[in-house]
Amino acid sequence: MKRCLWCRQKAVIYMREHRLALCKNCYPKWFLRTTERTIKDWKMIAPEDKVLVAVSGGKDSLGLWFALAQLGYAADGLYVDLGISADDYSEKSKSYAQQLAERLGRTLHIVSVSEAFGQPVPTLAKASRREPCSACGAVKRYLFNRFAVENGYTVIATGHNLDDEAATMLGNVLRWQLDYLARQAPVLPAKDGLVKRIKPFIRFTEKQVALFTILSRIPYIEQECPYSVDAASLFYKDLLNRIEERSPGTKWSFYAQFQKHLQPLLAERMGEPPLRPCRECGMPTTTEVCAVCRMKAYTRDMVPLD
Amino acid sequence: MKRCLWCRQKAVIYMREHRLALCKNCYPKWFLRTTERTIKDWKMIAPEDKVLVAVSGGKDSLGLWFALAQLGYAADGLYVDLGISADDYSEKSKSYAQQLAERLGRTLHIVSVSEAFGQPVPTLAKASRREPCSACGAVKRYLFNRFAVENGYTVIATGHNLDDEAATMLGNVLRWQLDYLARQAPVLPAKDGLVKRIKPFIRFTEKQVALFTILSRIPYIEQECPYSVDAASLFYKDLLNRIEERSPGTKWSFYAQFQKHLQPLLAERMGEPPLRPCRECGMPTTTEVCAVCRMKAYTRDMVPLD
Repeated sequence: MKRCLWCRQKAVIYMREHRLALCKNCYPKWFLRTTERTIKDWKMIAPEDKVLVAVSGGKDSLGLWFALAQLGYAADGLYVDLGISADDYSEKSKSYAQQLAERLGRTLHIVSVSEAFGQPVPTLAKASRREPCSACGAVKRYLFNRFAVENGYTVIATGHNLDDEAATMLGNVLRWQLDYLARQAPVLPAKDGLVKRIKPFIRFTEKQVALFTILSRIPYIEQECPYSVDAASLFYKDLLNRIEERSPGTKWSFYAQFQKHLQPLLAERMGEPPLRPCRECGMPTTTEVCAVCRMKAYTRDMVPLD
Repeated sequence: MKRCLWCRQKAVIYMREHRLALCKNCYPKWFLRTTERTIKDWKMIAPEDKVLVAVSGGKDSLGLWFALAQLGYAADGLYVDLGISADDYSEKSKSYAQQLAERLGRTLHIVSVSEAFGQPVPTLAKASRREPCSACGAVKRYLFNRFAVENGYTVIATGHNLDDEAATMLGNVLRWQLDYLARQAPVLPAKDGLVKRIKPFIRFTEKQVALFTILSRIPYIEQECPYSVDAASLFYKDLLNRIEERSPGTKWSFYAQFQKHLQPLLAERMGEPPLRPCRECGMPTTTEVCAVCRMKAYTRDMVPLD
């Protein structure tokens, strides 16, 4: 049996990449300390910042909100109700988010996609013939940003973990999508109407975040989104787990070395497309009408949900 | 049963990434045509060039020598005898190389590592505490280049295939070894005493090369080198095969998109370390004494082989 390196109690996790075994009491301390270091190292949050956590009801975003609160960051949450009725998915996720809001004594804002656009995400996706995950991502980014701008939040924090980020990077690398790679960073600075975005959990694997959330006794939605058939991402995560198994630490060095050496070079080289206000809604976009307003246009003749 | 797209005979191969099935007569034609196109596209061989093929006795290098001959390139071969006595490995490989030389009516030069350095590769590796594959690579690159320089060859052609190159690239990408990546290209131009190096088979998978060599009735050494425990390379090849299986064509686009978009940027950015003549042997190196002379120095007090 492994013992905690800090206190010799029974370990609940052994992190090969750090050669570190920790018990159920010490692990959350290590986790919070590492989160804090990530925030400092990447200059994610300044004292004057007003932080909005993108809360989905899953382990990552709830764990993040809790961790930020523990570290003294007075963050509020924003839950975007996607209107996914299958398996009561959206209703259940929302109630988990609300439970944590109550426990933290912080505000959980709720924005409904159906109210904002007249239709829930699945309908928007279908009408505009986009993949559900792609439509959903666009809608969420849009609503998070708009809400932050309109309510004076200066930082949007998301729960992306190392597995998420490394898998996305591997996909982008295999196709050498340099424009996507240039924008893959733990911090995306504020720019022309886009609020700063940060990923304080990039240092953790999925399992590490799950353990923190569980040890913090935070109930979260365990089921996958019924529309989530993002096989590519699961496939890349699996490949990266094999690589990690063979040489522990590779996931992180893959991500971090990229950030250190290549990302700045690409960001400089690729330039960024200029942003301008969307003709319809005024939010920043690279095209005349933003992606979300274009999606909305497809549903113009539909009967709005009540 | 698949039929040949060109002549409707029974197909012997179906290449998913090209959606192309070919029979045993048409496949070698396609293979040669593709080799020729690779040579032209990358400006690998000019009419005045004198080409030296690095011949190991395996499927890739023998297939390459044969293909070049078929395409009218009057290339000679150089076999480097590594002095690997286990399983009669070096003797057997040499005899396959000699067989093809006779069939082609071309010269096969032979250089022996034991004669050149007093000891065979396994001893050099052991004495200098290098991994056998790493020592062997250094010794071969050195001897190929020296031989080419001293005998007026202007191009060294090696049999590296797409699986080799993509696997190496994946390994370099996972660690973001930008200096290695900057030098990974189908053509390395001549420079300060280094002869131009080309890889005319980068467009083919291992299986495609094997099939060409077999259909060309060229016997080759099938056994792996007894020292080859290059598990990393096999591991990456396996991962890439899984990726390829899932989306055919990824191996090539991974390699080619890198060459197109990132390699020039890296080559420009990284700069290249200046080369100077080795103090001991005069061959180009980035250090005062070249890697091979340093290896040799470790064996100075050993009794030379007779």
